Amino acid sequence: MPLHEHSEGWTITAEQSVTYEVRVHPRILDVPQPSAVMDDGRLPPRRLAVVDAQVWALYGDRIDAWLARFDAPYRVLTVTAGETRKTRASVDEIQRMAIDMGLSRRDELVGIGGGFTIDLVGLAASELRCGTPYTLIPTTVVGLVDASVGPKRVINQLGRKNLLGTYHPARLIVLDTTFLGTLDARGLAAGLAEVKKVGEMVDPGLVNLLDRHGADLITSAFTHPASTEVVQRAVRSHLEHFAEDLRERELRRWPSYGHTVSPALEMETRGAVLHGEAVNICSLLSSVLAARRGHVDAEYPTRMARLSRRLRLPLHHELLHEPAFLEQALGGVILTRGGQQHWPVPSTDPLGHAFIEDATPGELVAASEHLRALARELT
Amino acid sequence: MPLHEHSEGWTITAEQSVTYEVRVHPRILDVPQPSAVMDDGRLPPRRLAVVDAQVWALYGDRIDAWLARFDAPYRVLTVTAGETRKTRASVDEIQRMAIDMGLSRRDELVGIGGGFTIDLVGLAASELRCGTPYTLIPTTVVGLVDASVGPKRVINQLGRKNLLGTYHPARLIVLDTTFLGTLDARGLAAGLAEVKKVGEMVDPGLVNLLDRHGADLITSAFTHPASTEVVQRAVRSHLEHFAEDLRERELRRWPSYGHTVSPALEMETRGAVLHGEAVNICSLLSSVLAARRGHVDAEYPTRMARLSRRLRLPLHHELLHEPAFLEQALGGVILTRGGQQHWPVPSTDPLGHAFIEDATPGELVAASEHLRALARELT
Repeated sequence: MPLHEHSEGWTITAEQSVTYEVRVHPRILDVPQPSAVMDDGRLPPRRLAVVDAQVWALYGDRIDAWLARFDAPYRVLTVTAGETRKTRASVDEIQRMAIDMGLSRRDELVGIGGGFTIDLVGLAASELRCGTPYTLIPTTVVGLVDASVGPKRVINQLGRKNLLGTYHPARLIVLDTTFLGTLDARGLAAGLAEVKKVGEMVDPGLVNLLDRHGADLITSAFTHPASTEVVQRAVRSHLEHFAEDLRERELRRWPSYGHTVSPALEMETRGAVLHGEAVNICSLLSSVLAARRGHVDAEYPTRMARLSRRLRLPLHHELLHEPAFLEQALGGVILTRGGQQHWPVPSTDPLGHAFIEDATPGELVAASEHLRALARELT
Repeated sequence: MPLHEHSEGWTITAEQSVTYEVRVHPRILDVPQPSAVMDDGRLPPRRLAVVDAQVWALYGDRIDAWLARFDAPYRVLTVTAGETRKTRASVDEIQRMAIDMGLSRRDELVGIGGGFTIDLVGLAASELRCGTPYTLIPTTVVGLVDASVGPKRVINQLGRKNLLGTYHPARLIVLDTTFLGTLDARGLAAGLAEVKKVGEMVDPGLVNLLDRHGADLITSAFTHPASTEVVQRAVRSHLEHFAEDLRERELRRWPSYGHTVSPALEMETRGAVLHGEAVNICSLLSSVLAARRGHVDAEYPTRMARLSRRLRLPLHHELLHEPAFLEQALGGVILTRGGQQHWPVPSTDPLGHAFIEDATPGELVAASEHLRALARELT
C-alpha cells in the first residue's frame, strides 16, 4: 500500500521501476539509419551531443554525419577531459547549451567519450528539467565495462573527488569496442584494471582470461578474439550488481574494490595517474591487506602484482609512502561510505570478497611497505 | 527478473522502493527529547540545520536549544528567501558548509523554513555524496501542505524558474502548524491558494471547507478548529498523488494546476507576486479557459473568483494583458512538460480535472480579458 495513514501522520512507500538497455553494436557510427538502433519508437527528439574533444578530433566528421542521419535537430558540444575540469562549471556549460537550444524533458542528450564525458552528461541530464533522458556511446575501456553501464554520475567539488552526484542511468548504452582502436596502450591497460577488479571480486574465470589474454588485448587494441568475452563478463557482473541496488543503499559493495585510496591518489596527482592505474594500485594494496589478515593466501598479492605487470599497470606510488596521505585518503572515502570503512578486499573464504572495517594507520603503512617491496622484487 | 540477457545485450529493470514519513506534531521545538521524535533508531548523526533567516529571527533561540538537545554535533546556516536567490550559488553554500563540517552520507541535513529553504536543502542533500538524508520542518502554508511533502526539489537557472532539479523526498517531514502563528495575513492567504488547488482538482469538499472557513483560517493564523482538517485533506491528496508517481513519469498531472503561467509570472515580477498568488491567478485563468470550453459551467470561474476574494488572493495581474507574455510563459512550461501543454483545468465531466493540449494564443488572450472583466466586476 503506497500510502498508509496512521494516528501520527502518513508513511509513504513509493515503488519505482527503472529500465535501461545495454546494446552491443560494433561500428555504430556506420549505421545507415541510426534512429532504428537508438530511438525507442517515439518521434525523433532534438539532441545535444556532448563529445570528448579527443574523440571529436578522431571521429568528428563521422559523428556529425551520423547525427545528421537521425533527421532531427542537433547540436554538438566538445569537452576536454581532465580531473580538474570534472566540476560544476563543466556541467553548467552543458546545461546552458541544452537550455539555449530549447531541449525539452522528452528530448535527449548523447554522450560520446570516456568516464569524464559520461559523468558530466549524466549529471547534466539528471538535473535538466528534473530528468532528461540521455544515451551513451563509451569510447574507453573504463567507459565500456564500468562507467557507462552503471547509474552513478559524479563530479569533484572543493578539491574532493566525486563529492556530488546522482543516480540516473542512461536510457541506452551502446557498446562498440571499435572505438578502442584509437586508444594508446596506456589507456587500454588502465581500463583493464577495472576488468581485473571484477575478476578478483566475483569472477575468478575472468582473472584467468586476463592472465592468458590480457597482454594480447592491449597489443591488439581489443581486436583479439578474447575481447568479446572479457567485455561481456565484466559488463554482466557490474549489471548484476546495479540491477539489485541502483542507488547504493548498501554501501558495503564490491565495485568499490580498488576505490578506497584511489580517489585521493587521482586528486593529489591531478590526473597524472589515470583512474584505472590508481584503481590497480589500490587493489594491490587491498590484496596485501587481505593477505596479512588471512583472507587470501600469502601468494595472492604476488600473483596479482605479476598480472598487473603483464597488463602494464603500475604496482605502487610514492604517495603511499606517506602515512598522512593514507590516513587522509581513507578518512575522505569513509564519509562517502556513511562513516564506515567498508573496505572491499579479495577473499578465498568466503570465496570472492570480504570487507575490512577496522584497518589501522599502522596496518596501512605496513601494507604499503609490503607492496613497495613486492614492486621492487618484480622490477 | 532484474537483469535480462539477450542476443543484442542486456535489459536492466531495477525495482526501487522509497519510504518516507510525514508526522503531525504540534510544538515540535518544545519536545524535551527531540531524537525520540526525529531519529530513526540509528546513532545520532551530525546535523547541518538550514534555517530561513526570518524564521531564525523569530525562533532562533528555541531552534538552537532544540538542536542542542539531540546531544550530537550540529551547525546552523541561515538563508534569506527570494526568487532571485533560488540558484546554484545558494545550493553551493549549503554543500560547502556540509563538507566543511565533515558530514557523511549517513549524517543529515535539516531544513526549517518555507518553499525556498525546502528546495535548497533538498537539492543540496540529494547531491551530497550522491544522496544524504534530510528532514524538514515547514514553517509556511505552502511548505506544510505542498512543498515539503513532495519529492521534487528545484532551483532557477539562467532566468528560468525551476529549470534544474531532482526527486529526493525528505526522510521525515514534521507538520507543526504553530509556526504559522507568526506569518502575516498575506503569506497565509497565499498558502491557501495551494489548498484551493487541491480542492478544485480532486476534493470538492475541501473547496466547501475553504468557502466556510478560509477567512477564519487567515484571521486565526490556522488556530481555528477547521485548520486540522484543511491541512490533512490537502496533504493527503498530495501524498496519494506522489506515492503513485514519485518521479513524475506522467507529465499530465493535476498538481500542476495553476502552475502553467505562474512560473513566468513569479520570475518576471522577481518575487513581488508570491508563489501562491501567482498560482491563484493562473488557477483562475485556467478555470476561465475550462468554462469557455465547457469543462465547467459558466458560473464556475465567478464562484472561484469570489472564493479568492474571501481568501484575500489576487484575481489577475497586468502582465496577463500582454499576449507575448502569455505565449512565452506557456512556451517555457511546455519544455518542462515534455513538449506538450498538459494544461490542467477543473472539470465537471469527468468530475475533477481535465487537460488542455491545444490552447491557442487567441484563446489565452480572450480568457485573460474575461478574467480581467470578472476581477473588475468583483472589486
